[in-house]
Amino acid sequence: MEGPPCSRFLWLLKMSVLISGLGIVLFMFRSVSLRAEFSSLTSGLPRPAMAVRMRNLLPEERLRNLFTYDGIWLFPKNQCKCEVTKEHGYNFQDAYSQSDLPAVNARRQAEFEHFQRREGLPRPAPLLAQPNLPFGYPVHGVEVMPLHTVPIPGLQFEGPEAPTYEVTLTASLGTLNTLADVSDSVVQGRGQKQLTISTSDRKLLNFILQHVTYTSTVYQNHGVDVVSLESESSVAKFPVTIRHPVIPKLYDPGPERKLRDLVTVATKTFLRPHKLMTMLRSLREYYPDLTVIVADDSKEHLKINDSHVEYYAMPFGKGWFAGRNLAISQVTTKYVLWVDDDFFFNNKTKIEVLVDVLEKTELDVVGGSVLGNVFQFKLLLEQSKNGDCLHRKPGFFQPVDGFPSCVVTSGVVNFFLAHTERLQRVGFDPRLHRVAHSEFFIDGLGSLLVGSCPEVIIGHQSHVPVVDPELASLEKTYSTFRANTNAEVQFKLALHYFKNHLQCST
Amino acid sequence: MEGPPCSRFLWLLKMSVLISGLGIVLFMFRSVSLRAEFSSLTSGLPRPAMAVRMRNLLPEERLRNLFTYDGIWLFPKNQCKCEVTKEHGYNFQDAYSQSDLPAVNARRQAEFEHFQRREGLPRPAPLLAQPNLPFGYPVHGVEVMPLHTVPIPGLQFEGPEAPTYEVTLTASLGTLNTLADVSDSVVQGRGQKQLTISTSDRKLLNFILQHVTYTSTVYQNHGVDVVSLESESSVAKFPVTIRHPVIPKLYDPGPERKLRDLVTVATKTFLRPHKLMTMLRSLREYYPDLTVIVADDSKEHLKINDSHVEYYAMPFGKGWFAGRNLAISQVTTKYVLWVDDDFFFNNKTKIEVLVDVLEKTELDVVGGSVLGNVFQFKLLLEQSKNGDCLHRKPGFFQPVDGFPSCVVTSGVVNFFLAHTERLQRVGFDPRLHRVAHSEFFIDGLGSLLVGSCPEVIIGHQSHVPVVDPELASLEKTYSTFRANTNAEVQFKLALHYFKNHLQCST
Repeated sequence: MEGPPCSRFLWLLKMSVLISGLGIVLFMFRSVSLRAEFSSLTSGLPRPAMAVRMRNLLPEERLRNLFTYDGIWLFPKNQCKCEVTKEHGYNFQDAYSQSDLPAVNARRQAEFEHFQRREGLPRPAPLLAQPNLPFGYPVHGVEVMPLHTVPIPGLQFEGPEAPTYEVTLTASLGTLNTLADVSDSVVQGRGQKQLTISTSDRKLLNFILQHVTYTSTVYQNHGVDVVSLESESSVAKFPVTIRHPVIPKLYDPGPERKLRDLVTVATKTFLRPHKLMTMLRSLREYYPDLTVIVADDSKEHLKINDSHVEYYAMPFGKGWFAGRNLAISQVTTKYVLWVDDDFFFNNKTKIEVLVDVLEKTELDVVGGSVLGNVFQFKLLLEQSKNGDCLHRKPGFFQPVDGFPSCVVTSGVVNFFLAHTERLQRVGFDPRLHRVAHSEFFIDGLGSLLVGSCPEVIIGHQSHVPVVDPELASLEKTYSTFRANTNAEVQFKLALHYFKNHLQCST
Repeated sequence: MEGPPCSRFLWLLKMSVLISGLGIVLFMFRSVSLRAEFSSLTSGLPRPAMAVRMRNLLPEERLRNLFTYDGIWLFPKNQCKCEVTKEHGYNFQDAYSQSDLPAVNARRQAEFEHFQRREGLPRPAPLLAQPNLPFGYPVHGVEVMPLHTVPIPGLQFEGPEAPTYEVTLTASLGTLNTLADVSDSVVQGRGQKQLTISTSDRKLLNFILQHVTYTSTVYQNHGVDVVSLESESSVAKFPVTIRHPVIPKLYDPGPERKLRDLVTVATKTFLRPHKLMTMLRSLREYYPDLTVIVADDSKEHLKINDSHVEYYAMPFGKGWFAGRNLAISQVTTKYVLWVDDDFFFNNKTKIEVLVDVLEKTELDVVGGSVLGNVFQFKLLLEQSKNGDCLHRKPGFFQPVDGFPSCVVTSGVVNFFLAHTERLQRVGFDPRLHRVAHSEFFIDGLGSLLVGSCPEVIIGHQSHVPVVDPELASLEKTYSTFRANTNAEVQFKLALHYFKNHLQCST
């Protein structure tokens, strides 16, 4: 931390930036532009305001106390940073050589911008209403499907009496009209981007305003049009959101709501058929007819004598997440239960309890416990132009409504039930070939709401080496493939840097 | 169409409903509630307004002309319907027997509501601002990440002079505070859902308001808090959107931006290895090193002697979309090119042209042409409580910016390049076992922006039966699996009814 005077100055810079409400999208500022930011906020304050404000803002320390969650200051800043130590945290760009970095950063920035364009990001700065506007209008929530027409509710004019009134509406992504049956001398520009109403009859004006419509004229999946409503010196602006609803993908649980019509078990195996078969046998003791999808990238393919097992043979050594992604791609039930091939079902492995949680909540994923290990972790993101900072903390955010023994968190152990459609939306990145886990939950940030219910427990097969020489040699080969090589570790860090646009983690 | 008097009445019902701005979410209305809707809109109009309005609305015929796109009236109605004839269109519920339908509808409604809860739907009704409010406030666009704090920009009070001012802010999903360093007698409720400012110093009031902050206190991926700003009889309300950004999943095209680092070819084959091998040979003439992913659900598995081909063996006859979904689940490049196993690459099959289009636009998918067949179709959705109406029209919406020979549409031929991550988000539904195509584009509604560039052409292998008896018998078996049985057709209609929550199509 810099010395007091300097830090005080930086602090003011920060404040002025964040007060502008653009903290996370405004960078590389020069003090000139800053002063502009600043003064734009002082309107309504007297000249000595600057001094006044500086006196009157809470000290940084106080703000840190007020707005810190779990040790992290979750307050918009112009940039974030991670306290990285030898033991803890990563600066992801270290995965690249200094000489490659400039070119990598250029590619990363270009890909990030392409991604943002397609997502309609960054969103426009907040739209501010001035006081004492003579208009009624919709502040928020008017939505129209592409190429559709909607009435704009709540438009009215309540300005001072005048001999004649002229009100102009302007749109940019669509056209305006009114359902009112009045002459073209009163309403001009029907079906165009600018609609002008001129009349001496105030009631007629309001009648026309109450029946104004917006028509989307460009086919797009998401966009926001800012419509302005103007009379003399007064201007009101409001958003019309153009959005095509995402079509549902529902699953029919069937008339009897059997578990097998709701849940598919998915797993991935590699060079340890004995573990897989043990897991399957333990599953069958409790759930004889659930469909199981097995993805296998071993050399020798298996013949599994079970009519409810679907077996997929992959090219040799395609890897962990490729197999997981293959397995979930084949699920045809509402829910999918992920298990590792070396787990062991017992009488505490109550799938129906996890189903009940997902059925009665808005959670997308709910984890159980593997021999008491719930592996709950929270992921907290701080945004920054050159890459976000990701903070990982053990534990959970809050209990799940209606399920006091379950909690909301960001990541769980590798035994979980998920909404198939949501899991497929995020997917397991086939670029991750070896040991990987939290990578999936990081990819799910913003897409998956994750819960954890520790009382649903699955067992784990013993790590005692097998005696059978053939299996033993398989296990030996397996272990050589399991662990991440140094190169693989670097690759994973590079993925976080490039793919997830992260800067660092703690 | 009903007779004039009746239709006029229905028409008024419709209008009053749609004018309420809730057209698509308000149903089963009783005229009582209707009158309420109605009068809620007449505020500011004199009593005889009713009569006035009825006289002054444009006739339905006129509105149909104004707001019809491609023959469909895209205007919110309380319900939609399809003109279904023997040759054209479907009422999807016909896929179920009358006796099953009540139970099916109950399940469908329950699943739909669960889906909506998880998506945060239906969204709240539009928020309306009253005229002449003494407040400045953000109309739209204030966003906060879960558990983070943001300053609320643009808050100010410009009401009449008074000895003392009291302004109260109220939130429901989070807490409020101010960065201003003032005593607890002036600001009450710091860090709570209700913040009250009382002072005789108007400048201080505005200074405090300019520094109000909102803190999200519940972890959720999406939500909207309506914050109210109140002084005496004036109340302003504005939304604070709680949203966790979706983390990017970017692909590194590599320093040289080679095509093989950008594009993977994906295909699915079944019982016709000769077609597959012919397609692969034609591909290799032009693109020797592109990775190809082959999903095969034939009985006999192939050995393909090509180091850039990845071969996946599926259980026999898993079907079309299961295979497609498997293939795309394994892609590790930014783009994936879909081709059928009986296509034929030629010198007009310029993959790099399709890449250029996706690189320079916001399209998610861009199709080419198969022997001149572009198969462009538009999908237009009308929403309705008991299931939406889907209208399919040939052609396109508009040209693609910057690519005059390409167009924006909803569906294309089965030869297209797509953003891998977007394609995986939508996926191919493994429940569709046989001939299926537009089902994918329907599942993509609201998720995929689709384009079509006819000048990129791929060939199709001849339909002349093979001479080789073995292959001939394979092709025979193939054809018995290809066509949809009557049951399969019913199943597809049922999927649209239940899964997509559609009512009918034209």
